[in-house]
Amino acid sequence: MTGSVGGRHETARLEAFSDGIIAIAITILVLDLRVPQFEVITSGDLITAILHQWPAYFAFLLSFTTILIMWINHHARLALVERVDGLLMFGNGLLMLTIVALSYPTALLGEYLNTPAERVAVVTYGLFVLGTSAAWNVFMLALRPGRGLLKPGVPPELIASTRRRVALGSVIYLGATGIALVNARLGLGIITAMWVFWAFVAYRTLNRRQRWSAEASSGSDETAEAE
Amino acid sequence: MTGSVGGRHETARLEAFSDGIIAIAITILVLDLRVPQFEVITSGDLITAILHQWPAYFAFLLSFTTILIMWINHHARLALVERVDGLLMFGNGLLMLTIVALSYPTALLGEYLNTPAERVAVVTYGLFVLGTSAAWNVFMLALRPGRGLLKPGVPPELIASTRRRVALGSVIYLGATGIALVNARLGLGIITAMWVFWAFVAYRTLNRRQRWSAEASSGSDETAEAE
Amino acid sequence: MTGSVGGRHETARLEAFSDGIIAIAITILVLDLRVPQFEVITSGDLITAILHQWPAYFAFLLSFTTILIMWINHHARLALVERVDGLLMFGNGLLMLTIVALSYPTALLGEYLNTPAERVAVVTYGLFVLGTSAAWNVFMLALRPGRGLLKPGVPPELIASTRRRVALGSVIYLGATGIALVNARLGLGIITAMWVFWAFVAYRTLNRRQRWSAEASSGSDETAEAE
Amino acid sequence: MTGSVGGRHETARLEAFSDGIIAIAITILVLDLRVPQFEVITSGDLITAILHQWPAYFAFLLSFTTILIMWINHHARLALVERVDGLLMFGNGLLMLTIVALSYPTALLGEYLNTPAERVAVVTYGLFVLGTSAAWNVFMLALRPGRGLLKPGVPPELIASTRRRVALGSVIYLGATGIALVNARLGLGIITAMWVFWAFVAYRTLNRRQRWSAEASSGSDETAEAE
Repeated sequence: MTGSVGGRHETARLEAFSDGIIAIAITILVLDLRVPQFEVITSGDLITAILHQWPAYFAFLLSFTTILIMWINHHARLALVERVDGLLMFGNGLLMLTIVALSYPTALLGEYLNTPAERVAVVTYGLFVLGTSAAWNVFMLALRPGRGLLKPGVPPELIASTRRRVALGSVIYLGATGIALVNARLGLGIITAMWVFWAFVAYRTLNRRQRWSAEASSGSDETAEAE
Repeated sequence: MTGSVGGRHETARLEAFSDGIIAIAITILVLDLRVPQFEVITSGDLITAILHQWPAYFAFLLSFTTILIMWINHHARLALVERVDGLLMFGNGLLMLTIVALSYPTALLGEYLNTPAERVAVVTYGLFVLGTSAAWNVFMLALRPGRGLLKPGVPPELIASTRRRVALGSVIYLGATGIALVNARLGLGIITAMWVFWAFVAYRTLNRRQRWSAEASSGSDETAEAE
Repeated sequence: MTGSVGGRHETARLEAFSDGIIAIAITILVLDLRVPQFEVITSGDLITAILHQWPAYFAFLLSFTTILIMWINHHARLALVERVDGLLMFGNGLLMLTIVALSYPTALLGEYLNTPAERVAVVTYGLFVLGTSAAWNVFMLALRPGRGLLKPGVPPELIASTRRRVALGSVIYLGATGIALVNARLGLGIITAMWVFWAFVAYRTLNRRQRWSAEASSGSDETAEAE
Repeated sequence: MTGSVGGRHETARLEAFSDGIIAIAITILVLDLRVPQFEVITSGDLITAILHQWPAYFAFLLSFTTILIMWINHHARLALVERVDGLLMFGNGLLMLTIVALSYPTALLGEYLNTPAERVAVVTYGLFVLGTSAAWNVFMLALRPGRGLLKPGVPPELIASTRRRVALGSVIYLGATGIALVNARLGLGIITAMWVFWAFVAYRTLNRRQRWSAEASSGSDETAEAE
């Protein structure tokens, strides 16, 4: 009993710390929307400069959405966890590292999309997204039912299906990064489409969970579908 | 019952994450108060340079106040919420996006107010404020009584009046942005006046709620007026 | 009763939000420790450049300590509060504004201390510290016993003595800023000495409170001395 | 009793504030991964520039891991604490200062590793790591059993062994910094190896604690080994 309570306190603190990192990582993305600088300025120049920054706005929107959805998923997965061990702690640390690091290829994409070097920017972005995906695989590895970290009542098939989905994501990001080597815009389009798809999945899951709450279903059923 | 508790935990966590983002967004505004750089420096030069930065101070004060009041309102509105669904989660995400993004036109305003390009800076600022206002409309849409996210006892007319106020705000920001196309200072003056007005409303509401607390009124009455 | 609980929840949330802002404000000070840039680099050049940055280290240490002590005080004062009203909310907002803004004169001091313009940098720093002091006066005004925000059992003389101390601080900062107009180093020395003194006061108060806890004194006595 | 509850609340708030600072300090490390700038850009140039930034990636990984492990340790040590006094508060403040400041030598290392000035960068990094280590010594001094801050049941030998380990760490960092004066890469290698070793220790401790939780051992046993 005491152990359980201690475990839950640990989980809550890991979640709060991760939330803090994610909140900062998502916010500092805006630091790459830089104000155009001029020696002599006219209204026309400034309008042109602002409009020419569209790659930076696009990169900001893409990474903001990416991190927001990862926050929703992170939360839903930690909701299944009763205790933290070394693998989960370091898997989570790796995930935080890759989420924080996403700021770099976002700035790169904002700077070099729509230039002769856009292929390098998109491939680099793809590699960093692949990095977050790899971290999710480690994270889910730590949640395998046999390892004993889950709350009682979490159905093993939920973990299994999430693991499959995460693994499939890695394959798709690998493919998109490969395609970007040949066609940057197509590769970036696939990565973007993936997040639109995942936003849609998260939206539906949140609504489904909602209905269950309204029906006052049991707590474990509810969290079991939280992913 | 379990569903309710789960729902309230969800709401608390959404609120904590949003608070984190808002706290960071409001703080990094200061990064646009840049120290003047000189090759050779004299006291006179530095005084002149600091005083000439008044547009940056003004933009900092305006956006700081804007975000502070949005935090107060965000808090008051989430206090009415029992459960989170997809629309509220993504409406809130959109709101966070626009609050975070406000840093960009703030820097633009700080740089180009009082230059030949000030009209472009003010119109851009107006468009971003309009963006936050649009996000508030989506957020309030998610809180419509029929959608079942509200705590029991929240009067429908409270939601309706808040929605009307938010919609009216959008119209005024649209007008102010349009006016800024013709007269930048007048447009900016209207946007600034709106925040002074909203600060006044928030001040009064906070005091009224206070008195009710002193009279030990029921919890739902209290939150019902929290907006 | 309900009102009280609601009030305490409000206070907790105001405290958490303020803590977030203070934590960020204290951390981003480090962004002004900038890495020296060279076209051609030698070990000797880098050592010289790092050592010549001492004003930036000093400014960082001064403002870090300043904000840390303000955090300790902010916490101790909010511990006396039962309910939040408009004046306290906006007084707290003003305090957050001035704490966040302190980053600017810190960077200025780090850049221009030990240059011909150091007087301007120190006076500006003094004015911003005076700003935080003014915000503390407003904050303490909101806590006047007659306004009804305090927890039951907080002795009025505690508030009165804190208010006197805060007012005295303002006078000293005003004096130090005035002196800095004539002698920058002396003015800065007084400001620095004030923080050393306040660190000492905070240290002693924390230890005294500690002993009381050990003696299991009543909760209100304990918080009453928390300042 | 009241004192204890107050004490625990104090500890929780110190922990939350420290978590906030650590989360920000670990996240802003990414701001030193700067996007290469070019007048005229080609894919080849950008690839070369990105690959040549390996010192910045290495420095980011090293400091991210360092701060992550310090967070795990900070958490484990505060879990032993019942009450906060002046020495612990200022020891913790000093620790936060050194963790936040680590951002500076990280940027220095990222910029000057693999240049003629790399020795200066590594020695500076070593000195700042030594600073964090010194802060840990003060922190552990505050936790000496005789000072009365610990929860009942924390075995004195746990504190003693942690203090020895922290002191040994300081000696090793001092040695590594000295070695870096002669051979920068070797010194940096020792510092890096230390963190790999500490990650391994933290990993094992987390797993051990985990098993105890599963056996539902008593709360104090559990926290006693949390370091």
